[in-house]
Amino acid sequence: MRCEIVAIGTELLLGQITDTNSSWIGEQLALAGIDNHFQIKVGDNLDRMIACLEQGLERADAVICCGGLGPTQDDITREAIASVMGVKLVRDDAIGEKIRHMFEARGRQMPENNLQQADVPEGAQAIKEMPGTAPGLLCPVGKKVIYAVPGVPYEMRMMMEGTILPDLKKRSGNNDVIRSRVLKTWGYSESRLAEMLDEHLTALDQSGAATIAFQASGIEGLKVRVTAKAADDGSADQILAIEETRVREVLGDVIFGVNEQSMESVVLDLLRAKHQTLALCEITSGGMVATRINGIDNTAEVVRGTLVPTDENARVTLLGEACRTVGSPDAAAALATATRELFQSDWALAITGAHDTPMGTAKKDGTTFLGIANAEGSNVEMVRLPGDRERVRQFSVISALNYLRMTLLGTKFVSL
Amino acid sequence: MRCEIVAIGTELLLGQITDTNSSWIGEQLALAGIDNHFQIKVGDNLDRMIACLEQGLERADAVICCGGLGPTQDDITREAIASVMGVKLVRDDAIGEKIRHMFEARGRQMPENNLQQADVPEGAQAIKEMPGTAPGLLCPVGKKVIYAVPGVPYEMRMMMEGTILPDLKKRSGNNDVIRSRVLKTWGYSESRLAEMLDEHLTALDQSGAATIAFQASGIEGLKVRVTAKAADDGSADQILAIEETRVREVLGDVIFGVNEQSMESVVLDLLRAKHQTLALCEITSGGMVATRINGIDNTAEVVRGTLVPTDENARVTLLGEACRTVGSPDAAAALATATRELFQSDWALAITGAHDTPMGTAKKDGTTFLGIANAEGSNVEMVRLPGDRERVRQFSVISALNYLRMTLLGTKFVSL
Repeated sequence: MRCEIVAIGTELLLGQITDTNSSWIGEQLALAGIDNHFQIKVGDNLDRMIACLEQGLERADAVICCGGLGPTQDDITREAIASVMGVKLVRDDAIGEKIRHMFEARGRQMPENNLQQADVPEGAQAIKEMPGTAPGLLCPVGKKVIYAVPGVPYEMRMMMEGTILPDLKKRSGNNDVIRSRVLKTWGYSESRLAEMLDEHLTALDQSGAATIAFQASGIEGLKVRVTAKAADDGSADQILAIEETRVREVLGDVIFGVNEQSMESVVLDLLRAKHQTLALCEITSGGMVATRINGIDNTAEVVRGTLVPTDENARVTLLGEACRTVGSPDAAAALATATRELFQSDWALAITGAHDTPMGTAKKDGTTFLGIANAEGSNVEMVRLPGDRERVRQFSVISALNYLRMTLLGTKFVSL
Repeated sequence: MRCEIVAIGTELLLGQITDTNSSWIGEQLALAGIDNHFQIKVGDNLDRMIACLEQGLERADAVICCGGLGPTQDDITREAIASVMGVKLVRDDAIGEKIRHMFEARGRQMPENNLQQADVPEGAQAIKEMPGTAPGLLCPVGKKVIYAVPGVPYEMRMMMEGTILPDLKKRSGNNDVIRSRVLKTWGYSESRLAEMLDEHLTALDQSGAATIAFQASGIEGLKVRVTAKAADDGSADQILAIEETRVREVLGDVIFGVNEQSMESVVLDLLRAKHQTLALCEITSGGMVATRINGIDNTAEVVRGTLVPTDENARVTLLGEACRTVGSPDAAAALATATRELFQSDWALAITGAHDTPMGTAKKDGTTFLGIANAEGSNVEMVRLPGDRERVRQFSVISALNYLRMTLLGTKFVSL
């Protein structure tokens, strides 16, 4: 079973938007065991779109095309597919009603051209997931199929997961189950992880029981993806469980989480298990830790609050004289201690470094101090973070959360 | 003059790496006035690579292929090009020496397989820029040409800027300059903008003086991109200036910024111009406004600080009894007023809504209240935001910043 991806939009060719949709779809196809040999970007031009779709159907069994389903004159994916299918566009009144209703629910008048989105090629079905006003389409072409999804990433993903991937799996007739588990690590380079796992990787190559791949994920660290193919979910999961145990034996608590877990969700879980609370003081990161932590539901029972005291006078007023200056180990300790008192929490985490001082901005010095305070006292870790200001901010977030994680696990904090 | 881009590497199809190179190259080609109709991703497979290169030369005058020039067995771009040219690979001793020298200069022994990179198709020239060990290639095919560059972004960019773009411009014989300007809007749908500008777009279609395209950018609103082609930079800029004036006449202060400006940079500039300061209280957005605002250099002179008072007791202690509950218009006003006092700022902005209450989480109710306080009092705007919790958080950020922008511009705030 082969599937091609066609990303549609002149803005993609012009580099105004980077096409991340095709990358995500490619990953999902691989995980579903479906071959993907070509990914094409084409502009909003009817003839060229038709050429891509026709070539895709020649070379593969299915084509997923992404984008060009909006309400403007540029949005001609529907026309291109109708031409390839050799049919007309017909107005689907049910979709039209849905679109009209969406505008009403938000108290807004619907411009008439939005109804263009309710035109579908004759014989095509609307995809049931429809989080926005652009419906996705499932368009049979003989025994093959074209799927059309909007370019808005979360709309595309909902349709892929809810309809398109299951439909492709059914068409492929391949009942093998491919499942994977992602072990997330922080702190080691790819070559170091590969060296540590070298012996095990060689053994896997021979046994063929599972495959292991590394995936660099920037500030989120390195993912170790274990993939197993088996006759059913249970057998695949069993292989994955055995592999996870083996990899954990080698890597230990460099692994901070599995699959959907994030550094912040793991830290919150550790605190929740201890029935303890946290407060944050973010100078370098300027609100990024709070943004991540507050993205999780029901954080209020664990996180008492966050302070970003940008201004010197505000720092002295709220946190005391010891917090007047920033960017030093002493400042990191003082900020953590005072923030803990201000919010009456069990723990406080503070981030400040050279980038918060005039020197840091000039020298691009990524030296950053992470302060942790609890009832016993405070502790500071220094990290040297690479890159420009924005990179340093991002790395400071994950470094600080990992420092707190190691502290909560009891592998790092030494009370004063 | 037409040019296609072929990005090579199975890791691109699998989504392990996002292909940002093609986007960058596409942008450079557009700025150089060279048409680019297709961008293709293909895996490390000789037959499929050859097919892409041949199709590219059929449809266009030039093909830029990116990646697959390294020293491993996967790296077969050289072989593919040689096959398309109908020639053999020959060892270029000068390149071999260069590679050997690079390893020596870094005090490292060169693995022999690195010399594979010195094999070039007969008749091809090495590109003079060579920052890494993989040489770029300029490969004439009749009157057309294939360029090969490494996948490492900075190596690719050096070769594009130093050799390939000048070579393409020379071949095209076209000295026209293409420039564009992005007007950023917030609050109107794409179809509404299109309707408002309809008359002007029709006039432009006839005159051909410039083109206007809309680009949806999620929570960042909608971009209106004006593009002009002229004999030189000055003439192009003059056309853009005239177009900007016309579009502004129609859209007014729905346009919040131009080119690199962001909603937060515009708000900070407005405050800076008034010599006034700001404090933030983020319940719904949980630190996202602070993250954006603190991403800009030298915010401390304008932003006195941010508070994310997640916990009820922390709110009462720091902000007073009026801030005990959240998620109502009164709460938004109380939070803004108390935050302004806490940080001693001229302005305060507070965000709280149904998503901060148990009801909001259950009902996915995106009703959100934006509070603004200044010395004269406070004011609250209610917005209904679409999507799940994360979308509501993101939309609340840009809605709140825009509300503050309109207030600072004097078009919205009515003092109590």
